[in-house]
Amino acid sequence: MTTVINKKIDDLMSQYPSLDHIVPFSGANTSTPYLMNDEARHSRKLCQSIEQVIKKCQLQDGMTISFHHAFREGDKVINQVVDVISQMGFKNLTLASSSLLGCNAELIKYIESGVITQIYTSGLRGKLAEAISHGIMANPVHIHSHGGRVKLIQNGEINIDVAFLAVSTADELGNANGVSGKSQCGSLGYAMVDAQFAHHVVLLTEEIVQYPNSPASIRQDQVDYIVKVDEVGDPSKISVGAARITNNPRELMIARYAAEVIEHSGYFQDGFSIQTGSGASSTAATRFLETKMRSKNITASFALGGITASIVDLHEKGLIKTLLDTQSFDGAAGQSLGRNKHHIEISTNGYANPASKGASCDELDIVILSALEVDLNFNVNVLTGSDGVMRGASGGHCDTAAAANLTIIVAPLIRSRIPTVIKQVTTVVTPGESVDVIVTDHGIAVNPTRADIAEKLRAANLPIMTIEALYERAISLTGEPKPITFDDKIVGIVHYRDGSIIDVVRQVQH
Amino acid sequence: MTTVINKKIDDLMSQYPSLDHIVPFSGANTSTPYLMNDEARHSRKLCQSIEQVIKKCQLQDGMTISFHHAFREGDKVINQVVDVISQMGFKNLTLASSSLLGCNAELIKYIESGVITQIYTSGLRGKLAEAISHGIMANPVHIHSHGGRVKLIQNGEINIDVAFLAVSTADELGNANGVSGKSQCGSLGYAMVDAQFAHHVVLLTEEIVQYPNSPASIRQDQVDYIVKVDEVGDPSKISVGAARITNNPRELMIARYAAEVIEHSGYFQDGFSIQTGSGASSTAATRFLETKMRSKNITASFALGGITASIVDLHEKGLIKTLLDTQSFDGAAGQSLGRNKHHIEISTNGYANPASKGASCDELDIVILSALEVDLNFNVNVLTGSDGVMRGASGGHCDTAAAANLTIIVAPLIRSRIPTVIKQVTTVVTPGESVDVIVTDHGIAVNPTRADIAEKLRAANLPIMTIEALYERAISLTGEPKPITFDDKIVGIVHYRDGSIIDVVRQVQH
Repeated sequence: MTTVINKKIDDLMSQYPSLDHIVPFSGANTSTPYLMNDEARHSRKLCQSIEQVIKKCQLQDGMTISFHHAFREGDKVINQVVDVISQMGFKNLTLASSSLLGCNAELIKYIESGVITQIYTSGLRGKLAEAISHGIMANPVHIHSHGGRVKLIQNGEINIDVAFLAVSTADELGNANGVSGKSQCGSLGYAMVDAQFAHHVVLLTEEIVQYPNSPASIRQDQVDYIVKVDEVGDPSKISVGAARITNNPRELMIARYAAEVIEHSGYFQDGFSIQTGSGASSTAATRFLETKMRSKNITASFALGGITASIVDLHEKGLIKTLLDTQSFDGAAGQSLGRNKHHIEISTNGYANPASKGASCDELDIVILSALEVDLNFNVNVLTGSDGVMRGASGGHCDTAAAANLTIIVAPLIRSRIPTVIKQVTTVVTPGESVDVIVTDHGIAVNPTRADIAEKLRAANLPIMTIEALYERAISLTGEPKPITFDDKIVGIVHYRDGSIIDVVRQVQH
Repeated sequence: MTTVINKKIDDLMSQYPSLDHIVPFSGANTSTPYLMNDEARHSRKLCQSIEQVIKKCQLQDGMTISFHHAFREGDKVINQVVDVISQMGFKNLTLASSSLLGCNAELIKYIESGVITQIYTSGLRGKLAEAISHGIMANPVHIHSHGGRVKLIQNGEINIDVAFLAVSTADELGNANGVSGKSQCGSLGYAMVDAQFAHHVVLLTEEIVQYPNSPASIRQDQVDYIVKVDEVGDPSKISVGAARITNNPRELMIARYAAEVIEHSGYFQDGFSIQTGSGASSTAATRFLETKMRSKNITASFALGGITASIVDLHEKGLIKTLLDTQSFDGAAGQSLGRNKHHIEISTNGYANPASKGASCDELDIVILSALEVDLNFNVNVLTGSDGVMRGASGGHCDTAAAANLTIIVAPLIRSRIPTVIKQVTTVVTPGESVDVIVTDHGIAVNPTRADIAEKLRAANLPIMTIEALYERAISLTGEPKPITFDDKIVGIVHYRDGSIIDVVRQVQH
């Protein structure tokens, strides 16, 4: 056959000399040798250990590794993989996890030993945050939003060499999800991005199921290798520190105000859309909204973002048509994703990347967001505490604030005798121009750029006051807070969603 | 704020000089100006006409345009768009449709006028095929398999500038599918590839529905522009020329033999997988298999490929667990895709691209394929007729033949007094090394490389004979066919799935 083909190719090239790149056929499986070996055909992606997969991916010093944080405080993959990498002697790696939490305190020792020398993350909590805030790293940590992370990846600033992605089940070709098997995290919205962009995509899974696994949140044509591990995460810890049903009268008052702001804002119309996040006041506001939706006989077209049990409840009651879920904030949300046809998994590229061709946050009417601090220019800090130590996350805060028609910040005016509304936030994460309304337990301030909303809320007899009046009220109760003293050294860089630098975090004095 | 930021950036760069690429924050919507304008926010992708969208995509002479062929003979988009392009005066375009059919005869005039000067397609039928076979084009048409097309796109040989993708419904950001609205084509498996790789992705849709549309076979973050048109296709013509329920005793005999080959092949075990295609004998074989599955009490793990009503029937009876659908071969299959949770849409990259990280055909046990001609080396021609004129398509033929454990070709030994088994096929599409068994109404031939199968089938008393004996039998009935005389000019290049050239098609003599 080869002779015949070569003769034809000669003819072809003499008739069409521009076809000089063509290659003659040389065998049915020249490019797919694994198809000639039944063992290779079914096992070519399966690795026996994390160490083996790291070798196969040809990890080298200086490369970038990535993880998702869908298990939040229950994650069992990040520390485990970095531990193996450390044992194998690698140094100088960039860690690009979609976020890091209290459970990642173990990473401190790998920073100290030079295994990890650079970090990109949405946030930091606990001992790791303390250590970095106190200057443990030679390089500043890069803080990004969820949407902004995808842009940094697209632009190549984050160039992922190997993505290690925790999934509860996968089949032998790599179709994987977080809604079947034992340790379910629900949406794999962060992991979907890494699976799309990383040079090598590794799945860590608890169970290898019969082909084809479905749904395929991560698809076989994105996956290089698969390792079976004992545990990828503890789903019961997904919601640690997040949503809870509150009986706190102050939180309930804020929630009631927030629901009334929504009701009278002009955006509370049939087919509206909303993101509420996982804070206690937001969750409570969701419950107040249910009553208002029923009495006005309106339903929402979609809820977005981190999806919680209380949002799933409204969906299953028929009050929210579609849920767009980039992160399941609790076990109930994860189970709903596996069960409800219109509970839809979306990647963070589709959620909030300002450089993607379409982000769902762009369609958002209303978002309720929390704050550690708000200042007189409506700037919001969700990253650093009043002591200057990092203890939060950028998350989808600036993404949704920029996009939504109505951005509501909910926060108690005072926390443990420390005012929330201050002259100037310690760290700007979301710029004031994106913030429309601040709802506190002492009153509501509307951004002067949104006189239209202020007018509507005043007409509804809501306790509208200026941000300056809110500030004065706070100070009158707590006194002027002492300014934090920082060292000059910059330990954190805060990226705005478009990748630009909106603020820096300085080293906390010892 | 700008002054404060600039001071911080100066500090940052003096502490970390390597951060010379950083950009200071310059406004919440610098990179997303459409968020500041409600009209732009909701309408930035919507175009009023095909002409407007072509202008927005900055189409130029010499560029490559692409389409999918999921509506098969019912397509109403390809001719329509090329007509507008012609009216706008463009020349010298490459047309990269996933396939072309009889309904595309209108394209002849745009080839004659120089609008289209190069074509990539899986196949050609009708008058367009006649014209190209008779030398109407200056350049040869490139024939590729479904999987091979994706590899050519990945490699950049097909470099799609603008993809025009027909969908029944889309929302304003571009979430689109073929399972809702009026003219449903079912799976958008081909379009999913173009949406991933094309520089500009345009949706042509009959209906713009409320955001968010789901399922999102094509996602908002893949789509640039959307045009509403009156009609994208006629679903009743999807199955024209394809599957039909046969009563033809010859076809039924072939089907019964094929089912018995499967039963005794060693691959008919619980959890087996199968692709059957849309031919009459394949469809009939599916029905015979049902009886065998029930009597042996086994079920299939998945069916792959072009999905038909008869495969859907087995799925809904619980005999096939999952359907992996890259093209819905009839209306019933399209409706099932919208209805059945385990009827899953897959792209042709995930179906059969030999260069993707994972193709479903690699997991396939059994495939039943058709043939226009088979030769003594088991090579198969599904492209050219016995007169040398193109009248078929490469499709998934060589993809699945290479990958499956058991590749069965079904064909009548003689068609209209012309033998199917001949000395040497007019055009090689699938190499004989990928073919295991030829089933005809006069007997069954097993590739000598598969002595294991031959032995099993002989033990089951099936009428096994050599391919030479089949050939002699055919010739004894029809006489030796007269060789076709071709001109020297090459009018078609047949790519194997890996992109290499497996054969050429020469101009038919007038």
